[in-house]
Amino acid sequence: MKPGAILETALYVTDLDAARAFYSGVLGLDEYSASPPRQIFYTCGNQMLLLFNADETVKPPRDASLPVPPHGAHGPGHVCFRAGPDEIDRWRMRLMDHGIEIEADFTWPGGGRSIYFRDPSGNSLEFAEPALWGLN
Amino acid sequence: MKPGAILETALYVTDLDAARAFYSGVLGLDEYSASPPRQIFYTCGNQMLLLFNADETVKPPRDASLPVPPHGAHGPGHVCFRAGPDEIDRWRMRLMDHGIEIEADFTWPGGGRSIYFRDPSGNSLEFAEPALWGLN
Repeated sequence: MKPGAILETALYVTDLDAARAFYSGVLGLDEYSASPPRQIFYTCGNQMLLLFNADETVKPPRDASLPVPPHGAHGPGHVCFRAGPDEIDRWRMRLMDHGIEIEADFTWPGGGRSIYFRDPSGNSLEFAEPALWGLN
Repeated sequence: MKPGAILETALYVTDLDAARAFYSGVLGLDEYSASPPRQIFYTCGNQMLLLFNADETVKPPRDASLPVPPHGAHGPGHVCFRAGPDEIDRWRMRLMDHGIEIEADFTWPGGGRSIYFRDPSGNSLEFAEPALWGLN
């Protein structure tokens, strides 16, 4: 018995408007819902990317019928998106066109290229080839 | 142009040994690699769950050929694993058998059940039905 897949990946952002402009406008993710100032949720394939304002999510639940436990981290988190070699080239160009710095761009010793950049809150984002992990 | 899938989901843990006992021993995830005191990496389906010690990952990269940008958050993060209705029942039993408290267990207004619990570092973990997000 083991978890078969991750359904929700969370990042904490400090400016929800700036995050929305970046994740919707630059990355082009599909917005599922937005409830400022607490959260913006995106669909990403068959997973969810949840952007939270930690100052809001650390508060105890207000609705007794939906007792979502508090959480919330501070400091730069990390998420990596899956991409093929050609896609990484295209993402690099798109990010640079939007004035986003490519903080690192290298190929791992075992194969697979990664590019790294930051969201407006300083989270470390990456596009990488799944071969890096031996995945298809 | 938009990211098609999340390849790496990260959580920050404060005790790597306790995390390993929990994620390997209780959740049964497949360990991909471990490099204490910095990190333990797990395969989860076609994704990776990366557990990091933020005190180590905030340090600048030491290897100029692998300039992985620093990151690292403090405070409880959140990850949700995908599960079907029967699986949620089985996970609930398994977690309780290991003395893990089920912090919340409810069905969302639009359908889909979630159970919530904590890892040893206090991260908020969840098993949920993908129907909650309109996903299959």
